[in-house]
Amino acid sequence: MNAQIIAVGSELLTPLRVDTNSLAITERLNAVGIDVRLKAVVGDDRTELARVFRQAIAQVDLVVLTGGLGPTSDDVTRDAVAEVLRLPLDEDPAIVERIRQRFAARGWQMPAINRQQGQVPRGAVVLPNANGTAPGLWIEHGAVMVLLLPGPPRELMPILDRVIEARLAPKTGGRRLYRRVLKITGRAESHVEERAQPVYVRWRDAEPPISTTILAALGQIELHLALISGDRARAGEALDRAVGELVAALGDSVYSTDGRTLEQVVGGLLREKALHIATAESCTGGLLASRLTDVPGSSDYVDRGVVCYSNRAKVELLGVPESLIAEFGAVSEPVAEAMARGIRDRAGVDLGVGITGIAGPGGGSEAKPVGTVAVAAAWGALTMVKTFRFIGAREQVKHQAAQSGLDMVRRMLLAPPR
Amino acid sequence: MNAQIIAVGSELLTPLRVDTNSLAITERLNAVGIDVRLKAVVGDDRTELARVFRQAIAQVDLVVLTGGLGPTSDDVTRDAVAEVLRLPLDEDPAIVERIRQRFAARGWQMPAINRQQGQVPRGAVVLPNANGTAPGLWIEHGAVMVLLLPGPPRELMPILDRVIEARLAPKTGGRRLYRRVLKITGRAESHVEERAQPVYVRWRDAEPPISTTILAALGQIELHLALISGDRARAGEALDRAVGELVAALGDSVYSTDGRTLEQVVGGLLREKALHIATAESCTGGLLASRLTDVPGSSDYVDRGVVCYSNRAKVELLGVPESLIAEFGAVSEPVAEAMARGIRDRAGVDLGVGITGIAGPGGGSEAKPVGTVAVAAAWGALTMVKTFRFIGAREQVKHQAAQSGLDMVRRMLLAPPR
Repeated sequence: MNAQIIAVGSELLTPLRVDTNSLAITERLNAVGIDVRLKAVVGDDRTELARVFRQAIAQVDLVVLTGGLGPTSDDVTRDAVAEVLRLPLDEDPAIVERIRQRFAARGWQMPAINRQQGQVPRGAVVLPNANGTAPGLWIEHGAVMVLLLPGPPRELMPILDRVIEARLAPKTGGRRLYRRVLKITGRAESHVEERAQPVYVRWRDAEPPISTTILAALGQIELHLALISGDRARAGEALDRAVGELVAALGDSVYSTDGRTLEQVVGGLLREKALHIATAESCTGGLLASRLTDVPGSSDYVDRGVVCYSNRAKVELLGVPESLIAEFGAVSEPVAEAMARGIRDRAGVDLGVGITGIAGPGGGSEAKPVGTVAVAAAWGALTMVKTFRFIGAREQVKHQAAQSGLDMVRRMLLAPPR
Repeated sequence: MNAQIIAVGSELLTPLRVDTNSLAITERLNAVGIDVRLKAVVGDDRTELARVFRQAIAQVDLVVLTGGLGPTSDDVTRDAVAEVLRLPLDEDPAIVERIRQRFAARGWQMPAINRQQGQVPRGAVVLPNANGTAPGLWIEHGAVMVLLLPGPPRELMPILDRVIEARLAPKTGGRRLYRRVLKITGRAESHVEERAQPVYVRWRDAEPPISTTILAALGQIELHLALISGDRARAGEALDRAVGELVAALGDSVYSTDGRTLEQVVGGLLREKALHIATAESCTGGLLASRLTDVPGSSDYVDRGVVCYSNRAKVELLGVPESLIAEFGAVSEPVAEAMARGIRDRAGVDLGVGITGIAGPGGGSEAKPVGTVAVAAAWGALTMVKTFRFIGAREQVKHQAAQSGLDMVRRMLLAPPR
């Protein structure tokens, strides 16, 4: 079964807003084995929408329209759909009454224009909207199914989920899409591809076939595996086996196979080992600490962090010897190590991280160009330190440096001190 | 003049990628007075793309296609366009030679498949691509203009900018869209709307009319003003006057009218007054320091920051009296004040900020629910402190709290101590 998504709204044709609803809708449709073949964005223009909708019903099995169900004259979706399908619009008193009650609950009278939201193309199924005034509508027109949904995500998603379970999943014969995501850091995309490709090509012709997509961003690579199957247990087994083979090929560069972020994985390891951590940051400016503390409950293992932008702060807050800075420079492995040990000892915690580097755009030199970052971690007698050369603008360098700091802690916790 | 944008690529029909190129393209087209009437996303399917493209050329003056110009069999844009316009494809030896040289510069031989990128629909103008192998193509077909652009933004944008200046701007009679953005914080959307609406309704019927759009996100509201005019000076004057009136109505809640971020504005004020700042954060976990240091050159005015997740760290690093924490609780105005003064005095800088709160999801109580955050700033004899109740999940609370910390510093610097 295949689908087209039509997002309605003139604001989606400006530089200010992009249609993101279609991502969540696609995910839900894919999950029950429905492919999205086309997406369109149309303004609040009844003639234009009618034209696009008329083409859509000639091409696909399911047309999902979002937005344009409000009470104003700009809201044209109901009218355009009814016109194309040649269905008269009837007022549904139950819808109008529900809207009236929503307003009454806040002590307001329903504005007259909201009555328009009670108009229903004859024969359509009304899909109640718990979070807004505009209900969804479901229309079966010959072999084509049409679904009208309100635009706001918190109104749209609950209606969509119910429709998928009640009306779409039964038509796809229990076939569903199952996914796994491997998250990888500390490796170049080409390296990951080189290792992963010989593994995943074998599944493309397997039964059922598993498709693989690589998504690369600075400091992070994701491998998305997907499989369509009518048998949940068999799909789960096939994906588990595939994930296992990829992890064997890629080793400890894979930090997550269950959707967790790097900071969640690091937090989980710290919690499991009942360790406390403290951070000392220069060029990342607090980003490492901020990411660590994005995780709920992180106050259980994050004790403190310091951001030492000035050399004086490095000396005062971390006890980094001035002579070390003078000899090697503020951006150097010895200073990163001294920062990691300094914060660990001063905070009296188990594990310290130190990051010092040149985020740019200024401050680079031939020997230490912009993007040079020294990262160190110290845990008991064990110290790790490494110098990176990151590419990208200031915020990208910060992001990659924080990512490397987190990953160094992760690797250290996986390979405990002997 | 109006346009349709067609983004080509099967990855854009998955839940993983959204077409964001169209936002930048829309901005550039709007700037020379071209409206975007429709957007479509099509997979790597030649028949489907040909169908959508055929409809597009019947509807609009300009069709912009992005993506699908690569060298593989998945890249169907050139073929689909040539088929619909009934233009034969000729190999352009100059393009092939340029691609060969790009590869040679890295010591590689050009793969045979890249030859396909030298295929040009007869009569098309080749638009050189400085950042990749696939050139753009410009075709005038009767009254319709067709522009083919490569998918990667860094390849696409330079080609688009040149086409707009050389070919599109001259056709729109010098009429251009001029914009201004007012950024506002510390106010609810309804408050901003109430104050701004009586001001901007007057311009809607002015000559030339100015349109106004409100975009609200947690902790930030933007007012976008836009005006189409053939006279740059007159447009600038009208917008300056409009911005002035809105600023008069909204007061110092407006922190930027020139595109700068809140951290850039705060950094600008610190630099201008030759002041140094230090931060003490609990619930924001370093986010405030990280945002301050996102600004290039911030090492000139950011001295240090501390993240005090444990009460012990608050006592040790900031000298917050334990008795204060015991009496008022770690999340309280007295503790926030003591944090701000403590970091300022220990760092020996001019200005300190303190933030302590409950980011959630755990840790809330009836008296201090999740989202309760105390923010303080101290500069000389002047202290400001305020308690907020933010809504949203953990990361949203962090974001709003950091935003409020920055805004408090901004307000303090604008109203210097007497």
